[in-house]
Order: sequence, then structure tokens, then C-alpha cells
Amino acid sequence: MEDPPTPSTSSPPPPSSPSASSALVFRVNRPVYDEEKLESQLHKKDTPSVTIKQRISQQCQCSAQRARALVFSLLPVLSWLPSYPFKQYIFSDVVSGLSTGVVQLPQGLAYALLAAVPPVYGLYSSFYPVLLYTFFGTSRHVSVGTFAVISLMIGGVVVREAPDSDFYIPANGTNMSAVLDEVARDARRVQVAMVFTTITGTIQIVLGLLRFGFVSIYLSEPLVRGFTTAAAVHVVVSQLKYLLGVKTRRYSGALSVVYSLNAVFSKITETNIPTLLLGVSCLVFLYIIKDLNERFKKKLPIPIPGEIIVVIVSTGVTYGMSLSQLHQVDIVGHIPTGLSAPALPDFSLVPNLITDAFAVAIVGYSMGISLAKIFALKHGYTVDGNQELLAYGLCNFISSFFQTFAVTCSMSRSLVQESTGGKTQIAGLLASLVVLLVVVAIGFVFEPLPQTALAAIIMVNLLGMFRQFRDIRHLWRTSRIELSIWVVAFVSSVLLGLDLGLLVSIAFGILTVVYRTQHPHSSVLGQVPDTALYLSVDQYEEASEEQGVKIFQFGSSIYFANSDRYVSSLKEQTGVSPEQIQYLRKVQKKKMKKSKENHTLVVCANEERGVSHELVPNHHSQDKEEEQVNGQVKGQVNGQVKGQSTGADTDSEEAVFIQTLSSPVHSIVLDWSCVGFIDSVGAKAVKQVIKEYAAVDVSVVIAGCNSSVLDELERLQFFTEMKRSIFFPTVHDAVLHCRNFNTSLGASPETCV
Amino acid sequence: MEDPPTPSTSSPPPPSSPSASSALVFRVNRPVYDEEKLESQLHKKDTPSVTIKQRISQQCQCSAQRARALVFSLLPVLSWLPSYPFKQYIFSDVVSGLSTGVVQLPQGLAYALLAAVPPVYGLYSSFYPVLLYTFFGTSRHVSVGTFAVISLMIGGVVVREAPDSDFYIPANGTNMSAVLDEVARDARRVQVAMVFTTITGTIQIVLGLLRFGFVSIYLSEPLVRGFTTAAAVHVVVSQLKYLLGVKTRRYSGALSVVYSLNAVFSKITETNIPTLLLGVSCLVFLYIIKDLNERFKKKLPIPIPGEIIVVIVSTGVTYGMSLSQLHQVDIVGHIPTGLSAPALPDFSLVPNLITDAFAVAIVGYSMGISLAKIFALKHGYTVDGNQELLAYGLCNFISSFFQTFAVTCSMSRSLVQESTGGKTQIAGLLASLVVLLVVVAIGFVFEPLPQTALAAIIMVNLLGMFRQFRDIRHLWRTSRIELSIWVVAFVSSVLLGLDLGLLVSIAFGILTVVYRTQHPHSSVLGQVPDTALYLSVDQYEEASEEQGVKIFQFGSSIYFANSDRYVSSLKEQTGVSPEQIQYLRKVQKKKMKKSKENHTLVVCANEERGVSHELVPNHHSQDKEEEQVNGQVKGQVNGQVKGQSTGADTDSEEAVFIQTLSSPVHSIVLDWSCVGFIDSVGAKAVKQVIKEYAAVDVSVVIAGCNSSVLDELERLQFFTEMKRSIFFPTVHDAVLHCRNFNTSLGASPETCV
Repeated sequence: MEDPPTPSTSSPPPPSSPSASSALVFRVNRPVYDEEKLESQLHKKDTPSVTIKQRISQQCQCSAQRARALVFSLLPVLSWLPSYPFKQYIFSDVVSGLSTGVVQLPQGLAYALLAAVPPVYGLYSSFYPVLLYTFFGTSRHVSVGTFAVISLMIGGVVVREAPDSDFYIPANGTNMSAVLDEVARDARRVQVAMVFTTITGTIQIVLGLLRFGFVSIYLSEPLVRGFTTAAAVHVVVSQLKYLLGVKTRRYSGALSVVYSLNAVFSKITETNIPTLLLGVSCLVFLYIIKDLNERFKKKLPIPIPGEIIVVIVSTGVTYGMSLSQLHQVDIVGHIPTGLSAPALPDFSLVPNLITDAFAVAIVGYSMGISLAKIFALKHGYTVDGNQELLAYGLCNFISSFFQTFAVTCSMSRSLVQESTGGKTQIAGLLASLVVLLVVVAIGFVFEPLPQTALAAIIMVNLLGMFRQFRDIRHLWRTSRIELSIWVVAFVSSVLLGLDLGLLVSIAFGILTVVYRTQHPHSSVLGQVPDTALYLSVDQYEEASEEQGVKIFQFGSSIYFANSDRYVSSLKEQTGVSPEQIQYLRKVQKKKMKKSKENHTLVVCANEERGVSHELVPNHHSQDKEEEQVNGQVKGQVNGQVKGQSTGADTDSEEAVFIQTLSSPVHSIVLDWSCVGFIDSVGAKAVKQVIKEYAAVDVSVVIAGCNSSVLDELERLQFFTEMKRSIFFPTVHDAVLHCRNFNTSLGASPETCV
Repeated sequence: MEDPPTPSTSSPPPPSSPSASSALVFRVNRPVYDEEKLESQLHKKDTPSVTIKQRISQQCQCSAQRARALVFSLLPVLSWLPSYPFKQYIFSDVVSGLSTGVVQLPQGLAYALLAAVPPVYGLYSSFYPVLLYTFFGTSRHVSVGTFAVISLMIGGVVVREAPDSDFYIPANGTNMSAVLDEVARDARRVQVAMVFTTITGTIQIVLGLLRFGFVSIYLSEPLVRGFTTAAAVHVVVSQLKYLLGVKTRRYSGALSVVYSLNAVFSKITETNIPTLLLGVSCLVFLYIIKDLNERFKKKLPIPIPGEIIVVIVSTGVTYGMSLSQLHQVDIVGHIPTGLSAPALPDFSLVPNLITDAFAVAIVGYSMGISLAKIFALKHGYTVDGNQELLAYGLCNFISSFFQTFAVTCSMSRSLVQESTGGKTQIAGLLASLVVLLVVVAIGFVFEPLPQTALAAIIMVNLLGMFRQFRDIRHLWRTSRIELSIWVVAFVSSVLLGLDLGLLVSIAFGILTVVYRTQHPHSSVLGQVPDTALYLSVDQYEEASEEQGVKIFQFGSSIYFANSDRYVSSLKEQTGVSPEQIQYLRKVQKKKMKKSKENHTLVVCANEERGVSHELVPNHHSQDKEEEQVNGQVKGQVNGQVKGQSTGADTDSEEAVFIQTLSSPVHSIVLDWSCVGFIDSVGAKAVKQVIKEYAAVDVSVVIAGCNSSVLDELERLQFFTEMKRSIFFPTVHDAVLHCRNFNTSLGASPETCV
């Protein structure tokens, strides 16, 4: 901006530039256009309209190329694996894969607790889907696998469908309480989790094929953050009992947080001290490691694998000190070695699970895609939202037959994978192989692993989510509406449970959008002198109104839910109310008649120079109400007229009265530059208000309306009653027209056809 | 527009006006402003910020004047009755009142059938609320009372809560089927209808006091028309059995239309021929009268009271021919003379009824207020939406203790009241007195009235609603989205029942708004030469793009649900994709390196003049994918550059490569004039895309952003990373800046701080 501009036809340095600071000049010299005139000078391009039939036939064309592209898009591995730069990438991928695998392992065991299935199924879930994602996924850095929020949602459903209460074996003979058949219960729970995962996968596949990847947009950031914070609350509450070593049942559904807390605290005296000590040590250790990893991020080649250390040490300690046998510390227990054969899920459960599966499918996908997009942005590649959805769907669907529960990306693990130098999906593949190795070879080693250590792992992983409480302060300063979304998402998800809470918060999020379009800013504009720029007169001192012209701006489209508001704020903000003027005219006409009969008319001239004409009331009239209105309108007229001269101070001609009673504002310009669409209700309201104003000799013109809205108005038959020439491309065109129009034609509007 | 304009500072007749047809000239000559510069020259007004505390204390101020205004607003009768121009109005009001009363009577009897209570309660409902409305209502022309749609909704609830099946007395001894205890059933049904009306009234009062009159805006016109058409279908189906004289049970809830039709048609052979004949005669007679009334609207002083004629004649015929006794024609039966004492409703039913009551409260109010507004507009007075809501609430609430069912305005009756010259609420008062007279004196006269005649009255009254099917054709041409609302409202209300259907259609209506903001029109703009007007280049031939500058317009606010779309359509429509350029650069850099090592670089100059630089691939590279992308970007670059000269045809310097790989578009202008609000997700997306473009040396500036959005961005901390000077008040300012900027500084953008 420092150099003077090169000469050009429409921005030469002007000889008499008002501003010395900039040499750039905005210079326009053209006739004033209204839409009619403008369109008569322009030529519309013929856009060949494509019929639905043509569009379908286009879509359905088949060719070898298309088929190839389809296969490549469904199996992204085909496009990146053949060109995998082996020498360059393999070392980083191996390091990253091993590091991630080492995290997968303890997280898999821990999150199985959340999903209310035996730990080994967490290992399965850390193997199959991770393997499959290598083939279907488009993100190179996310680590697919078990994830706390999803696992918790699954756990809620599983517990609801297979509650403890269904599996009590009546105690035989004696008066003792019944015994819980844990084996049968767990088998059932695995079955529920499996079929649930199958449904989730199916939903994701269907949505992916239908290109419905966009559904995740309704999960806006504040919503997701409020929701995940709520999930963290649920998780911590559900893990408390493991940390303390008390035995309570697991609750699900609305208010489960309250019930769980109540159950734990009512049994707090039964706390198993060794369990608590072990758990808290793990917690503190993990927290320190996490902190170190963050603090020395740049110096450490790979993050310290705190979780696997905790698993190994706590397993060793528990085994060595026989804590399980001597102090009743709950341990993971039997871990079968090897993989189990695929099995068919029990589809009779489908009707009970389908709505929850929708929630998990969408939440899982949203978590994954948002993470994938962040990495893609950072490393300069693109991820395909619909393919990702399909990939998760396939991972879940296929794996579910091998007894896994639903998975998505985990934030913490993906960060490990990326920060240890992972370059491609190969890293994920290797991570899954690490898990496989453990499952087939040394799974039994983890049998003495205490559950309290797993609870500690889960809790420390969720600490980050609790930091999201800081959002509240931040959002309070930046956007109250987004704060309300956060709070609604958090409160409803904590109290109603994650599934119902999610539904409520999505509905609320959508309503805020409607609220915003219903209550947009609106203002009266004035020109910044000699600039053709129009700004709010309430905000800027320099914005000055053209005499007799009001410019009204409304910051939203006009449609059924705000057309009433549009009309009322138009009348309120411009201060010109056709009803009042109309009513006053009637009253005055009547009075004129009467006074003509009675010859008692007195005109108090000059009370307020050139404006006020008061009729001394004929005291026998009953018009209290009318006087009231009269007073109001007079006040309004007084308030508005500045420098409007009337030539009727003494004459008592009726016409003069009517004339002076017309509003001092002769034209209203509606700035429609913010109007993105209009519906029939809006068009009708506008038509109506234009007519109302026309009846009191105020002409209304519309400025800045874009061509798609004009087309809409055309279709809505707006122009059967209105002229196209009341539309102007800019506010300044409209103002110039109004100024001229008033001088040349007087006050009779010709807005209607 | 014919006269030449008076000379003025900014619109003098120009000596060299390009257009001869108009003397009005748009002339601007000012420096180019960006928001930074503009704001440095302007002074913001201090708007005294009112704290919440102050606002509350203002709201809660008490004074005698306020109290008086409150009383007057709650009891509008106080303001209009004292000034009632007796001599002028009374005759019209009496005529109108009597005519309306004569219609109230048969409609009251008939709609009681719909509400599933004995006919006399229809008479009560045509008296108490009508009387009360005189005191509370602000509309002078609407006729409050029974209304088909509301009555039907009540009927559905009543039948659900007190189904026939609950009132069978076990047949004593014999094998015959059980006998229906109609007396007990009707008593119960009246009780349900009463308490339902109490709740409806309470809801309306509460909403009215909370100033929630705006809720009716969600019932947009297409929605109401679809909904009432569905109601007409329900009504006709429910009346078929009376017309035919067959006996079936009454269904309610989802699919009740199908069940009812099935039940009637399966018993069609049991049709009572005298009933059918009588009903059809009434139907034909009423239809002809309705037609005559419409055709000779202007010639008839008052409409022919077809309904009361039908009632009187059919009663006479039935009584005279003893149709009830001899031919089992169903008649109205016992009508107690006089009013019954007030009674307390059975509040134990409240939990079952409250959601339905909400639906009735809102539908009733919406029907009333829309009618009231039409009349107010026609006769030049205003109605107060919140007071109307309160008025309906009070009418329903108080009356319900006198055993009425919920009421609202009836379209047909209101038209009678208005067309017969009704001037004020006095007409309504008189109509209610007509009904009172019948109830206390000659109610018993109507006992032989056949139900088939009532069914005929109901059906003919609803013929108008079936005409709404024509909306479909109309909406197909004007607005597909509104058509979809109509269809969804109709189908869901027919199939799911009126209450659930209403809920579904409101939700759908709201979603269409979100859909519209998600899928707005968007286009690339070009200037109409020498006008500073920017129009879509796809639509207008004259719109020409500035070289190297793309202007992108998006017809909606930018927020969570469309920010992704905003970014993707920006990239798509401008054809400038930072990812591709970025990627291509990387590839080229790599190739550069390799080629430097191998010295095999060949530049194919002049393949496409001054644009295309192709690298002959080193055949040992594995970069199939890269080449593909390379090809794409090259195509893109070829497609866009027209007349861009590069001075690097033979030189193989790396910098030159990078330079030529930068997009031929050096600036992108985002036209934000349609942006009414922005949220954090939108702001982040925009920030991100600006950075992405900056990384490939494309500068992005924003034009036409209004000050409330700028304030929002300020709060969202947009300007911590972005300069305020990338905002320009108009597109033309931005374009002039970009043109100059590119000439003076070359291609390094400085959009970010």
C-alpha cells in the first residue's frame, strides 16, 4: 500500500483527493440503477437446466475408469501402499507402531471395563479393527481402537440389556442372599456388545454409502466439548468403585451418575485399603509421567510409556505379594490365550439397541473425523469424510463377528502415533500386531493385573477432558450462545445419560441457529458524508440520515419465524407507524367534519414551528381514546420532523390537514443485503407493509437484494403486485432515487403496480 | 422520475453521463477504505450499557399510571365500552349478533359430536367463553366459540382417556354381548373434556403472561394449511358413520383414520337408509346455500342462515315422521334445560393430558390470532397478540368450570359476524345471549334433531379446507421447500394424529430453515464495467472478473453447520485449492532436488504460452499419484490464467518454479454482505482458510462485513491472528485494494498479523 497505484481507468490518483494518507481512490460515476433498468442493460446467460432425469443418468454412467476410481476410493490402501517409500518411512513407522501398540494394550484392557465386558475383549477390539483400518482408512496418523467415551456408551447399553439382576442364582436352601452368576452375565454382555457393534457398523456403512458424512457437522465444537466433559464425569464416577475396591451395581440411564455416586459413598466404609493405595500410587505415577511427557515433548524421542509400566509393575506387585488372595484386591482374572472363532451375533436384540447404536455411530465418527482432519491439515493431505465413515463402519461391522466392541480413534493414542514419527497406516498395522502377539502368546501374564490400576489409567487419560471446564470462562467472554450450547450439552449428558443428552444438545444447537435468525441485529443507517457508505446511526456519529429517508437494515433472511419481527422492528426503529398515521387521519377527518359544522375550529399555529396543528376539542365529544392516539402521533411527528416546512399555518382546508398529517418521512429504504432467502410468509409480510406505507404516502424501496432472492420473489409472485423498479442494487442508488423522487413528484408513492 | 433532479452536492447532472435515459447519477469520489482506516476516521457513539440489574429495576417500577395501563390492557373492555358510539353502532351490532348467534347454535351442537361429548355441552361452550371474550378480547370481529379442528383434537383425547371399552356392563346371565353404559361414559367424557379445557386455559394464561404470544410464528402458513387439511380429513372420516347411520367405535391416535375408514366400510351394508337420505339432503341443501351466499355476497344484507334452517327443518321432519322411533335414525337425545352449576374438574387426569393440552392451546391461539390479524388489518386497528392469548386462556379456564370444552375463533362464523356489519365485541355478546336463550328456554326443542344433519353441517363447513389441496400445485410452482412443509404437515397429521403430527411438522419446519442456511446460493462475482456493481459471472454476461482476483459470495451466515461447506464451496467455485498448490510445490521441490542431482531437467517451454512448465519425469520414480495431482493442478492453472505473463521460460532456478507454481489468482475477496452472524466454528474455519491461502501466496480479504459481525469476530478473538485491515466496507474497495496491492508489493500476502 506504500507505493502509489499504477494508473488505471477507474482508480487514478484524483487531483482533489479528500484523504492524503492513501493514494487509492474509489471513484464511480454512473447513472442510478434500479433492478429494472439494470436488467434491461444486462444479458442473462443461458444456464442449461439439467433435468432430474439427465442428472440421474449422469450419475449412473458406468465405465472402466469409474469402476477403478470406485475401487481405489473404497480401498485407499491400493493407492498408497504400492508407492510406499520403504527405505524412507519404515523405520519411523516401526518405532511409532511399537509405541502405539504398547499404549493400545493397557487401554484395551482398561476400556473393556468401561464397556462392561471382560478385559480380553478389549484386546480383541485393539486388534481386528486396527488391522482393518489399515486397508480402508484415509488418515495416516489416527490410531483407531478402543476409546473411553464410546466404551462407556456401550457399557451403559450393555448393562441396561444384561443387568446383574437377571443373573442371580437363587441361593440353595439356606437364607443367604442369592449368588451372582458372573460367567453367564459376562457371556450375555459380550453378546450384547457384539450385536451392538454390528448395528453400529451397519449404520456407519449405510451412512457412508449415502454420503451422509456431513451429519457430524451438527456436533459443533462447544457441543462436543460439553458432551465429552460430561462423558468424563460419567467415566470417573463409574471407575470410582474400582479405585476404592468397593462392590456396587452399575447404573445406566437418566441420573445414573447420581445413583452411582450415592451407591459408592454409602459403601465408602468398605473401601479395600490395599486396592486404594495401589490405585492412588498408579494414579500419581501416571500423572507425573503424563506431565513429564508433555513438558519434555521435544527432548524425548518417544514418550515414556507410563501406562505399560503401570501395567507391568502393578501386575508384578499384585502377583508377588498375592494381593488378590490375601487382601481381596480385584484383578482382571482369566484371560484366554489365542483368538476365538468368529460367531454370529444375536440379532433378536436389534430393536432395543438401534437408537443407541445411532448415537454411538455418529459420536464415534465425529470424534474420528475431527481428529483426522487436524492431522491432515498439519501434514498437508486430505481425508475423505465419507470414506472415513465407511472405514469405521467396515472396521466395526467385520470385527464384531470376532467379538469386539465398537471403536473409533483415541485422541491420546493418535498423538502418540503421530509424535513418535508415524508416517502411514503401516504404524497402525504394527500396533495391532503388537496386540496380536500379546493375545496369542502372553495374555495370561496379565491375569493378576489389578482393576484399580486400570481405573487409574482410565482416569488419568480423562484428565484432559476435565480441563474443558475452562471453556466456560472462555465462552462467557466470546459467545454466550455457544456457552449455552456447552452447558446444555454438559448438563443434559450428565443427567440424562450420554445418548439422550446428545439428542437434547443437538436439538438445542439447531434451535440456537433459528434463534439467531429470529433475533438478528437491526439498525437504522445513515451515510458517512460523501462516501456512499451507510452505517448505523446509533453507532457512529458521522453517519447522518438523509432528510425524509429512513434506511432500515435487518441482519437476517426474512421467513415465517421472523417476518412479524421484521415488520415490527421496521416500524419501531424507523419510528414511522402507518397504523397511527392512518388512525390519526381518520380522527382528524372526523373532527374536520364536525368543526366545519360547528365552526369552532381553532388552529394553534406556531406552537411548534410549522409542525403542530392542534384542534381544540369540542367538549361534547367522547373521544378520549382518540385524543390519546392523537397525542402519540403528534409526539412522533414532532420528534421526527426537523426543518420540514409546511405552508399551512392559518388555512383550514381539509387537504392541508391531511397533508400535514402525513409522515415527515417520505421514503423508507429496506437494506436487504443480509437477506439470503425469503419464503412466502416473508414475501407476504413485506408486500403488506409496503402497501400499508403506501396508504399513508410513504414510499418503500428495497436495496442490495441479491439475485437469488429476486428470483425467489419472482417465483413467489411478488411482482404481480409490486414493481421491479422498487429494487435497487445498492443503498446509495435507492437513496439518490428517493431524494430525487420526492423533489420531482411530491409525496404520492408509486410502489405498487 | 420524469423531471430533472434539483442540483445537489452529490448528484448533479453529469456533463458526460453515460446513460441518457436517466438524469440521476451515482457519483462517488473518495479514498479506498479498509475497516481500520474507516474506523480511525469515525467516532463511535457511547451507548450507555444497561446492566441486567438496572433493566430489572426498570421493569419492576411501580406507579399508578403503570397499574392503570396494566388494568386497561388486561381488560380491554374498559377502554372501548365507555366510548361506544351507541347510536351509530348498536343497530349493526344487533343484526350481526343475532346472525352469528343463529350460526353458533347449530355449530355448537355439531362440534360437540366431534368433541365426543353430548350436544348440550356444545351449547354451553357457545355461551360462556363467548360472553367472557367480550371483556378480555381485543379483536372486534372474530367470533369465539366452538371450532371443528380443536373440537376434533379434544375428541381424540377424550376418547383415548374414556374409551367405550371401559364402560361395558357385563350382560347379566345370558350369553349376549355386554351392554355399553352410555350415561356413565358420557359423564366421564365430559369430565375429561372439562379438565382438559382447564389445562389448556391455564397453559394459554401462563404463555400469555410470559409474553409468549410469539410461539404461533412457528406455525407458518403452509404448515397450518397442511395441518388443517389433515384435520378436515380426520373430521370427515369421523363423521361418515353419523352420515351413514352405522355404529362403530371411535378411534384415536396414530393411523386412526385408517382404522375408522376400515370400520365404517366393513359395516357399510348396515347403512341406515333414512339417515343417509336425510344427511345427504342436508348436505346438498347446505352446499347450495353456501354457494349462493358466496355468489351473492354483495346483494344479500345478511347471509342466508342455512345451518339453522337445516336444524329446524330436519328436527321437524324427524319429529313429525317419528324417524327415530320407526327407522332408528340417531338423534341428539336428551337436552337438559337450563345451565348446570359450576363443578371442580378432576385434576388427577392432568399428567395424561398435558402434552395434548399444549397442542390444543397453541393451535387454538394460532387460529385465532391469524384471523384477528386479518380483520384488524382490514379495519385499521391493532390486536395485541399476548392479550389475545391471555383472553383465550381466561375464556377457556373460567368456562371450563361450567363444563365447556376448549374454544377458539371459527373462520366461518367470524366471516358471518364481520359481513353482517358487526362493529365491536357487542356483537359477540349478543350472539352468546342468543345461545343462552335457547339453553334456558327451548333446548328441549332440539332433542329430535338427527345426528346426520349435524354431520352434514360439519362436513359442509370443512369443504373450504379441502380446497387447500390446490395449494400443492401452487406451492410446486412457488416454493418446493414450503411444499415439503405442507406435505409433511398433512401426511404426518393424517397418519400420526393431529397432536403428534403437529409436533413433527413444527420440527420439520424448523429444520427447513437450518437446511436453507446450510445450502445457500453461492457464486463468483464480477464487476459490471465501470459501475462498482458486482454480479454473478455465471448469470450475467457483462459481469467481468478482475484479473487475478476472485470474488466469492455466500448467501448465509457462517456457523457450525455450514462452515465446512463454506470452505469447500469457496475452494471449488474459485477453483483455487491451497492443498493442491501446496502439494504440487512439494513434488516440484523434490523433483528439483533430484533433477539437480541428475541434471536431467528439461523445461518444455511454450507448450502453452507462458504458463505450463512440465518436468520430464525421472522414470525411476514411484510418483504415480504425484503426477496425477500434478496434472490436475496444471490443468487448473491452465484453465485459469488468461494473459498472465511470466518471465521464466528458460531459466531453471528453483525460485522460478515455485513462483510459477503459485496460483494465477493472487487475491480472493470474500463478500460477506449476507453474513448476519458468525460463531466460533465459522470464525475458526475462516481463519484457517485464510492461513491456508496465505501459505500459497494468495491473499484473502473480506468485504461488506457489517459491524455486528465485526464485533462478534472481535469477541471471538479473530483479530489476535488477523489484521483488521483485511476487512473492507464494500467489494469495490476490496477489489481496488487487491489490484493495487498486487502491482505494488508482488505476491507475498500480509493478511495475518
